[in-house]
This record gives sequence, C-alpha cells and structure tokens, in this order.
Amino acid sequence: MEPIPVVRFEPPAVRVVDQSLLPAEERWIELRTLEQLEEAIRSLRVRGAPLLGVCGATGVAIAAGVDASDAGIRSAAERVGRVRPTAVELESGARACAEAILGLPEGERAGAAWRFCGEYLARRQEEDRRLAEQGVPVLRPGAVLTHCNTGSLATAGLGTALGVIRLAFARGMVERCYVTETRPLLQGARLTMWELERSGIPAVLLPDTAAAALLASGAVSTVITGADRIARNGDTANKVGTLQLALAAARFGVPFVIAAPRSTFDPACPAGSAIPIEQRESSEVGGWGACRWTVPGAAAFNPAFDVTPADLIAAFVTEQGVIRPPFEVTVPAFLEQSREGAPA
Amino acid sequence: MEPIPVVRFEPPAVRVVDQSLLPAEERWIELRTLEQLEEAIRSLRVRGAPLLGVCGATGVAIAAGVDASDAGIRSAAERVGRVRPTAVELESGARACAEAILGLPEGERAGAAWRFCGEYLARRQEEDRRLAEQGVPVLRPGAVLTHCNTGSLATAGLGTALGVIRLAFARGMVERCYVTETRPLLQGARLTMWELERSGIPAVLLPDTAAAALLASGAVSTVITGADRIARNGDTANKVGTLQLALAAARFGVPFVIAAPRSTFDPACPAGSAIPIEQRESSEVGGWGACRWTVPGAAAFNPAFDVTPADLIAAFVTEQGVIRPPFEVTVPAFLEQSREGAPA
Repeated sequence: MEPIPVVRFEPPAVRVVDQSLLPAEERWIELRTLEQLEEAIRSLRVRGAPLLGVCGATGVAIAAGVDASDAGIRSAAERVGRVRPTAVELESGARACAEAILGLPEGERAGAAWRFCGEYLARRQEEDRRLAEQGVPVLRPGAVLTHCNTGSLATAGLGTALGVIRLAFARGMVERCYVTETRPLLQGARLTMWELERSGIPAVLLPDTAAAALLASGAVSTVITGADRIARNGDTANKVGTLQLALAAARFGVPFVIAAPRSTFDPACPAGSAIPIEQRESSEVGGWGACRWTVPGAAAFNPAFDVTPADLIAAFVTEQGVIRPPFEVTVPAFLEQSREGAPA
Repeated sequence: MEPIPVVRFEPPAVRVVDQSLLPAEERWIELRTLEQLEEAIRSLRVRGAPLLGVCGATGVAIAAGVDASDAGIRSAAERVGRVRPTAVELESGARACAEAILGLPEGERAGAAWRFCGEYLARRQEEDRRLAEQGVPVLRPGAVLTHCNTGSLATAGLGTALGVIRLAFARGMVERCYVTETRPLLQGARLTMWELERSGIPAVLLPDTAAAALLASGAVSTVITGADRIARNGDTANKVGTLQLALAAARFGVPFVIAAPRSTFDPACPAGSAIPIEQRESSEVGGWGACRWTVPGAAAFNPAFDVTPADLIAAFVTEQGVIRPPFEVTVPAFLEQSREGAPA
C-alpha cells in the first residue's frame, strides 16, 4: 500500500502534481526557484496542511542552493512561511528545516536540507500508515461515506480518512466509497474522486444535499472524515458540511468516525465554542470557475468549517491509537499519554 | 402583494418567462403553437407543478384555436400531458380545460378555453394568497432559511414557502432570507435568489454544506420549505436536502415548517416509507452546465427528493389552515375536514 505520488525531490528542484488542474489533467510541474514554489502555494497548485509542511522545508532547501548563509536561510524560511499565513505547517516545516541545517558548514547545508525534506516526508508518510492501521478495525464492513479530500493530495502520504479507506479496501473490509461533492470548493468531487479512481476503489459521488437520504437508505456502514482542529472535550472542527453528515449519521444509526493525527488535537482549546469560524469570500458561493448561477453580487454565508459536537462522534482514529467516549475523559488522557505527533 | 409575473395570456398565444435563462437574463418568450409550448416544457423554460398545470390548460386553448373538434381537443390534451409524464398537474390542467369546453359549440371553445386558463391561474393565485396568510403567524420573527424554489416561478402565484416569506417580510415579521444553493439543479441560487432580489428582500446565499453551521449559529428563527408529497402520518417528501435541514433545525431548536396546499397531501400514502424515491441522471452531479469538476463517467447517487420524518416537523401550513402535531391524528382529520384544494 503506497501513497499516490504527489511530490518528488529532484535537487535542486522539486516536482509536484498541479492540483489546480485535477481531475481534468494530471500534470507534474517542476519548481526550481523560491518564486516558482511560492506561486504554486499561492495558486493552490499544492495544498493540504501536511503537504504544505513538506513545501515549507523544500523552500529552504531550494534557497540553500542559492545562498547558504545564515541570513539567506533565515530569510527564505520566513518568506516561504508568509505565503499562506494561516497554514501553520508551511511555516513550521520551513523553520524545522532551517534549524536542522544552520549548525552545519555552509557547503553542506543544501545537501542536508534536501535530506531533511526526504526524511520529513517519510515521517509524515509513516504517521499516515500507522493511522490507517489503527483505523481499519474501526470501520464496519461495507460501504463508507466521506467528505472533502483527506488523501495523498492532502498529506503526501496515504492520507487520514482516505488512508483508512484505502487500507480497509485493500483488506476487503470496504466495498465502495461514497463521496460528497463538498461545496463550495468541491474537493470531494475533484480530488477524492480522482484518488479513488487512481486507487481502483469503486466510488459514487453525491450532491451534498443527498447525504442524509443516502444515510437513511441504509447503504452506508460508516462515515469517516478528517479534522482541522479537535478540542479537549472532543468537539471537532472540520470542512463545512461535516456537521450535517454527523447529524444524519446519528439519526440513522451509522457510526461517525474522525481520522486525524495527534497534531490536530489542540490541548489549549477547551470546547468547540472556543474555535473561531473563518468566513471565506462570497464569490465562492453561487458559482464555480467561469460558471455563475446566481444573481450578481449576492451576499453569502460561507464558513470554511463547522464544529461537530463530541456527542455525535463514535471514535477518533489517530496514529497513536483509537479514542472512544466519554471524550471529556479520554481525550485529555490521550493528550497526556501520547507523544507530539507532528514531525519537526 | 402581487406575484412576480411569470405568465401572461395573449390569445392566441401565451407569454412566459424563460426560466432556463434565469438569473442571468429575464427574457419573455411567446408561445403560439403546441410545438413551441411542448418544447418550452421539455426544456424546463417553464417548470413548477402549479405553473405546469396552467401550461397544460394553455396547450388545450392553443390547440382549440387550430382544431376545435372533439378529437382535436382530446388529442391535444393527451399530447401535452405526455411531455413530462411525472408532472401530474400538467396532465390534470390539460384534462380539466378540455372537459370545461367539450360541452360547448365548436365556435365558442377556443374563447372559453382561454377564459378557463385565466380562471385556473386566478384560483391558483388565490390559493397561494390564502396559504401565505395562514403561514405568517407561524414564523418566528427574525430570519428565515429556505431551500429550492417555491415562489412565483414555481406556482405562478405568490408561491408556497416563498409566498409566506414575502408576505411576512411585507408585514415586518421577516428581516432576511437565507437560501441554500440546492445542488444539483441549484434552484435556490438561480431562482429563489432572483425572486428575493425582485421582491426587495435581503437575501443571503449559502452552500448546502453550510446550513447546519448557520442553524448552529442561532441566526435563523424559522426554517420553511415546500413539499412534493405528504403522507397521512406527516412524513414529507421534498427536494433532496430538506431532510438535513430538518435534522439540523431539530438539533439546534429551530422550528421546521412545511408550506404546501391541500393537494400535496396524499390520502392514499400511509407513511414516508411508501413514497418511491426517483433517481435522476448521474451527469447532474459533478458539474453544472458546461463546467465539469469530477472524473469523467463518475457514478452518482442522485435522488430527486428525500423524506423528512414527521417528528422533525413543527407545522404544516396549508391554504385551509395550519396543522400541528400529533400528525398521525391531525393530518387524517385535516384530510377529512378540508376540501380538495386543487382547482378544477
């Protein structure tokens, strides 16, 4: 079971799948300069928090090949971290790479940075593999329903929820994967459907409106999604639309499972009410690309994510074990017992 | 309070708003022949069950101007009814018009048919007006959330749920209307947003994925939608996506209200489980118009509607009164006491 390749290190360049062209076209682009890497991050040609961590480190490696001085490396790390300020992993990947090489002689820094990138990616991929192993026994045999994209395109490894699904399919535990379109940015329709096709897993797309009808029909054994942030009491922020899947799953007796690494848990966040909800641009609603389908200038309610209350969640699957209710007890216990999962 | 004009009788022709061009363009098209009318129905230039009833009658009126013989009128009524076989009102409107004129001398039939069309439309509009009056006191003051299109474009009157919203806004009871995009056919984004703009009602569009987050936020006082079929126990089939609105409304303590005329209740249907779920074409999912955003040939789950269990519904608003729980008692009682609401 290997991740779908989405990034390759070819010093002094890196090659990535241009995700902005998927699923119409799988095109690999070569990034040789910091400017090219920054443009690719800014234009969402690369995306997904763990993959952005890899890109942050790669930015430092590219820069070290041009100017390996302390000042050059520090300024490159800062610069790449600023391209998408809310993507914490972009900055932390860049900083980790810089710290790993600043103690070395200048002549060795570029080579060491590229080795760091490879090791960083390998650690992320190993984390995904462990998470997928933990998740397989949590799924009920049959069909799964998932939301958004949580696969190789997001993590550069097997993925989180989608990694569990791929491994469970390989072991005959999953027969089919239902995928929501995931308006407004359509990551389910564009990216997850592409990954499932690449993986040979039977996939069925549905409008976000049809998820409750699907769950009512009895066709789904387990719902599994990723997460953006998990509070100490188990309340979970994830891509908008997750909450209504959890509500419908609860009504129709289908287990709702979250797959996320230890690093997604926020020990400082007591409950979902403390998670700020980011509002995105109105123009994302009422159209897609060049297609517009509403009145010009329409106001929109367009939150990036929603918060699923802990009582709707059956289990958290992490790379360090599965967490079951009562979450107000088990999540804090997990946070104390587990190791910081994020590579650094 | 007048309906937004969507149909005008100008014998021997009828003029209608071409709904397939909305909201980009409000274009009136003139239909002078049965062929033109059939094409407009087939291409969804006119849609919505009550408006299709008007169109069925209009088809007979147009035909009577060409061949007013018994055979000519009967064959026209049959032909227009077949254009969209699942749209029951199309056929019943045509048949009612034919029956109304077949007893008259041939020379009077065309004129009488056009008068029938005008009266048929006026009865539908009066029904909507009465329904809206019944609905206003059911709404809690504040903002409403609705789904799909239930306005003048659907009924040629004030509409059902949207008629209640318009009247409540005019009386200062509603300050804002939230509208789901309503994938896959986007009737909320395309048609309801257009009607609200035309009516001067502040409107906010949301992706279908964001409805639960909106309801969790406390911004919505009442959810109100239309219905396609209501069973004797109150289970209600409506546009796919309604069920998840009802589930989220229940979770966050927001009343969920159905607005539908007496004719939407099916006395022969005991419960939601007896309502067949029509599956539509896969190609409607994963794209819109010329825009495609998933892998070619993707399989899809694409039901036209879903069934909301009666326990999630706070009230039914009809033109003949408001029905409250326990619906297994109050709906059968309503069906016995009320008059058949459908004109003709």
